[in-house]
Amino acid sequence: MSKKLTVAVVGATGAVGREMLKTLHDRQFPATEVRAFASARSAGSKVPFGDTELTVQELKEDVFEGIDIAIFSAGGGTSETFAPHAAHAGCVVVDNSSQWRMDERCPLVVPEVNPDALADHNGIIANPNCSTIQMLVALKPIHDAVGIKRVVVSTYQAVSGTGQKGLEELERQTRDLFSLRDPECKVYPYRIAFNVLPHIDVFLDNDYTKEEMKMTNETVKIFNDPSVKVTATCVRVPVFSGHAESVNVETVKKMTAKECRILLSQAPGLKVIDNPREKLYPMPAYIAGDDETYVGRIREDESIENGLNMWIVADNVRKGAALNAVQIAEELLRRDLVRVKDRNVFMA
Amino acid sequence: MSKKLTVAVVGATGAVGREMLKTLHDRQFPATEVRAFASARSAGSKVPFGDTELTVQELKEDVFEGIDIAIFSAGGGTSETFAPHAAHAGCVVVDNSSQWRMDERCPLVVPEVNPDALADHNGIIANPNCSTIQMLVALKPIHDAVGIKRVVVSTYQAVSGTGQKGLEELERQTRDLFSLRDPECKVYPYRIAFNVLPHIDVFLDNDYTKEEMKMTNETVKIFNDPSVKVTATCVRVPVFSGHAESVNVETVKKMTAKECRILLSQAPGLKVIDNPREKLYPMPAYIAGDDETYVGRIREDESIENGLNMWIVADNVRKGAALNAVQIAEELLRRDLVRVKDRNVFMA
Repeated sequence: MSKKLTVAVVGATGAVGREMLKTLHDRQFPATEVRAFASARSAGSKVPFGDTELTVQELKEDVFEGIDIAIFSAGGGTSETFAPHAAHAGCVVVDNSSQWRMDERCPLVVPEVNPDALADHNGIIANPNCSTIQMLVALKPIHDAVGIKRVVVSTYQAVSGTGQKGLEELERQTRDLFSLRDPECKVYPYRIAFNVLPHIDVFLDNDYTKEEMKMTNETVKIFNDPSVKVTATCVRVPVFSGHAESVNVETVKKMTAKECRILLSQAPGLKVIDNPREKLYPMPAYIAGDDETYVGRIREDESIENGLNMWIVADNVRKGAALNAVQIAEELLRRDLVRVKDRNVFMA
Repeated sequence: MSKKLTVAVVGATGAVGREMLKTLHDRQFPATEVRAFASARSAGSKVPFGDTELTVQELKEDVFEGIDIAIFSAGGGTSETFAPHAAHAGCVVVDNSSQWRMDERCPLVVPEVNPDALADHNGIIANPNCSTIQMLVALKPIHDAVGIKRVVVSTYQAVSGTGQKGLEELERQTRDLFSLRDPECKVYPYRIAFNVLPHIDVFLDNDYTKEEMKMTNETVKIFNDPSVKVTATCVRVPVFSGHAESVNVETVKKMTAKECRILLSQAPGLKVIDNPREKLYPMPAYIAGDDETYVGRIREDESIENGLNMWIVADNVRKGAALNAVQIAEELLRRDLVRVKDRNVFMA
């Protein structure tokens, strides 16, 4: 690793892109230079980076020369087009879109869960779906200890998962309703204010949403274990920030709630808040901006022999997106993996 | 059955009590007289009944003489004290509190599910928990057709389940946040506006909430089948009215999603809204005031051999409370069961 380390954020003007720049700065990521890219429309605008500002440059195919790591959060289409050019130029991409997640050539990584998968990268590393990341940070220690057979998860997902426009929609609709105006639906197909929508991302042929199938399929890839079955119902709730998940786990061997609490308390990236007598449990409105994944409401499920219920909460823009991506970049540095072995893998 | 039929609503000034009076009127319940009772504090006040008003009378032990049916929604303590006196006076009680639900002397009834249980009543009939009612209206046809082994349910429950004060808390906190004032928590232990709380009713020794164990235990009693296992996570969401439930069902025999959709479309009290391609699924904000229990997002769960996922929504104050109680009263009339066989069963 040379001393010079140039990092780019692609999609720097979006909610996650801004959080990525903030996270790079907050964690004192050892970049010697940070560049911000976005579409031509945003080129020339400024984005904050610590106490300074970066001028946004237009994303083009030839901008990646001399950039060591590019963290993408610009949508699947942009990633599909530009990530191969970055890798071809020798720049390692950490991509937050769903574009490359299930591609066999790309590791799909949660640093607390499967950092070793990074070793095989060829220039594009995928950041998992927000809901999957926080669930697997909590489930990994359990899977290692007693084996997980099956997971039934129902989510309570914040509008920040839809980006800045999701935040604006919830705020605008709430104000409209309190002003006796008809709330307009621009972002979601139905009202999100004072409502819940069992619909995140598009519907697939099997009547699951893409978001739900991400949780099923990404879990298998990240755990590298097709024996782990996940069935998911993903629901948008009128919360600005923070995803919560009600997670039911069937394990191979028995684990008591007490054992689970102790295990998760000692695991990386996790914080257990679980004292029902004192009314202590994690909630999305109270953990915004935090790096940790929070777990509470841990209890044995008496409906099966080896079952546990739990409640998992994290800041979806931070651990669910920006932080996990920056942690991947940190892990690449630590493992001396900031280089592309074969620059032609993604060039058709 | 005499032609004279006097009906009382006990707890008439509360949110559910008012909805009970509205439901009795809307459904043209054949009462010759309707009386409204509440605590001494509310005595003398007026409550609407159709185009007229009823003067609220003070609830006392000796008021039940000459009343045929009393529908209680006044809290567990009031039911514990007064329901036995009503039954002793020959008045049949339909009680909306949790006080009598698990009492072996009391039928626990959802008219679409187990109306035959009414035959054995001795003056006190219990109305199940709101979350249980809507779930079992949807699950009963499935249980009859292929047998249900296990249910994993996560709820999305509206603040109207806490009564008028829950509605006021969500509205006040939302206004406070939009006015940059600190939102005060009077009703819930934490902020409910733009947040979700994995905590409904009190915590029990097993770290489940009472609300969660109601779903487990009431299901067994209503289905009269201890082989049906339910594990629940109950969550309050910032929705004014309407409970939603993400329900995962493991059946004994296979049922396809298509078969389930057809079966539920023909079942009493149910309406299936389930067309993902057209973005059609039920949501709490769009079904307020409706009598039906809505089911959507029906799909096969590939994580087990015989599994289904579904999304069940109903107006918790209506089908979850007032309507179900009035339907029980209607069923008592239909079956000529408006009489108390043994008036001493509940007298110590």
